[in-house]
Amino acid sequence: MVRYVETDQMGYVHHSCYVAWFEMGRIAWLREHGCPYSQLEAQGILMPVVHLDLRYYVPGRFEDRLVIQTRLSEIGRASIGFENRVERENDAAEKRILLAEGKVELACVGRDGKVKRLPNDLRAFLEKRYA
Amino acid sequence: MVRYVETDQMGYVHHSCYVAWFEMGRIAWLREHGCPYSQLEAQGILMPVVHLDLRYYVPGRFEDRLVIQTRLSEIGRASIGFENRVERENDAAEKRILLAEGKVELACVGRDGKVKRLPNDLRAFLEKRYA
Amino acid sequence: MVRYVETDQMGYVHHSCYVAWFEMGRIAWLREHGCPYSQLEAQGILMPVVHLDLRYYVPGRFEDRLVIQTRLSEIGRASIGFENRVERENDAAEKRILLAEGKVELACVGRDGKVKRLPNDLRAFLEKRYA
Amino acid sequence: MVRYVETDQMGYVHHSCYVAWFEMGRIAWLREHGCPYSQLEAQGILMPVVHLDLRYYVPGRFEDRLVIQTRLSEIGRASIGFENRVERENDAAEKRILLAEGKVELACVGRDGKVKRLPNDLRAFLEKRYA
Repeated sequence: MVRYVETDQMGYVHHSCYVAWFEMGRIAWLREHGCPYSQLEAQGILMPVVHLDLRYYVPGRFEDRLVIQTRLSEIGRASIGFENRVERENDAAEKRILLAEGKVELACVGRDGKVKRLPNDLRAFLEKRYA
Repeated sequence: MVRYVETDQMGYVHHSCYVAWFEMGRIAWLREHGCPYSQLEAQGILMPVVHLDLRYYVPGRFEDRLVIQTRLSEIGRASIGFENRVERENDAAEKRILLAEGKVELACVGRDGKVKRLPNDLRAFLEKRYA
Repeated sequence: MVRYVETDQMGYVHHSCYVAWFEMGRIAWLREHGCPYSQLEAQGILMPVVHLDLRYYVPGRFEDRLVIQTRLSEIGRASIGFENRVERENDAAEKRILLAEGKVELACVGRDGKVKRLPNDLRAFLEKRYA
Repeated sequence: MVRYVETDQMGYVHHSCYVAWFEMGRIAWLREHGCPYSQLEAQGILMPVVHLDLRYYVPGRFEDRLVIQTRLSEIGRASIGFENRVERENDAAEKRILLAEGKVELACVGRDGKVKRLPNDLRAFLEKRYA
């Protein structure tokens, strides 16, 4: 459900909100697959965003009911890619309307800020969810 | 200068933005008085907000030029109080227009999350700026 | 569920997020009671916040599961007051933990920005939910 | 200057903040070139973002002093493209450090939400700043 604070004076959802929603999507994805992001951080693994590519098709509005789709799309040596779709639930019709979609690439970084290879257990975990 | 992202669909600045502006005000106050907040954190002192009291008089708008006034208003055993005023610059007239004002009380907390007395050097520093 | 974007470098939820959560609470309250906020806006009634009073007791953290309680606490001539409590769900114990609570006063304002009396139907609607 | 509210629990600036900074950059660019965004909106022209492509190189931190570079990079039939760079001022060295860069494509949309050609005067204005 779109929050009032997420609207702007155009009367739409501000485009920066989708960036936070994509994040909610991948954090929910990790949690649902048994690997909460907070657990990664506790192991000293940070996953900062290094690349963001987003396309907006239809503006979101206050009180829209949204669904955030998340798909693991890439497993690199030291990075992960997710694809997201933000869709609006549609009471009248059966089909959801695609508001925006995009890709996010996250680097694997240690507490020292240096890029590091994905730990083997994380890689194994991700590969099982990828195929 | 009000950011576009800070507006909402009423066409005004969202009321939560003032909370961030008050924070900017007190952080600038600390820095200008020679005690940057990052230095406090480096010493293991966190200053979370424990009480917030804000009154809104005139709505802010996109591209308004604002001035944030900050005044140290209280030094407690384990807390500090600041008073803030957010004013709009007014090209036509000399007088600025008061948009909102309020008080913020911050607790002094250690890395362990426990409230602790203000360190003596911080207290001495604040008392010099208070009188 | 606390979003990652809502945390700050203290490791807690930023105190300004509660302001948005209170808003979510009262907007959900209105919708659940059959009077969606978007409907008020469509009638030319804006409800900007004029007073905010918030106390923080326990910091929120990333991935906390929160409950926002909302209670209509005042019906004025041209204003409404809500009280909110933000509580953390607690898996171990039965009791929820109170993170923050506060009061918000909203003015009734027309599209022209002028304060106006609550419309009679809105007042009647609110009084039924108040007693 | 990075705001405290813009940090997250990694201790860095949250990646969604750059999206708002890019927006600040292009709005400042328009204003400095004599075409404030609010004036476009007053003429019934909205410029929603339709594509966002951002690369992050070095994380921003609290109290960093940043410079946002903005360049008009494309003038389409019904769209405009801007390129932005976010750089950190560096006291020690002369060279600024590039934190992030990216492209933003904005559509030209009327109050009815329909895409429309750039008005001739806006196109002429932009073309003069482009060469």
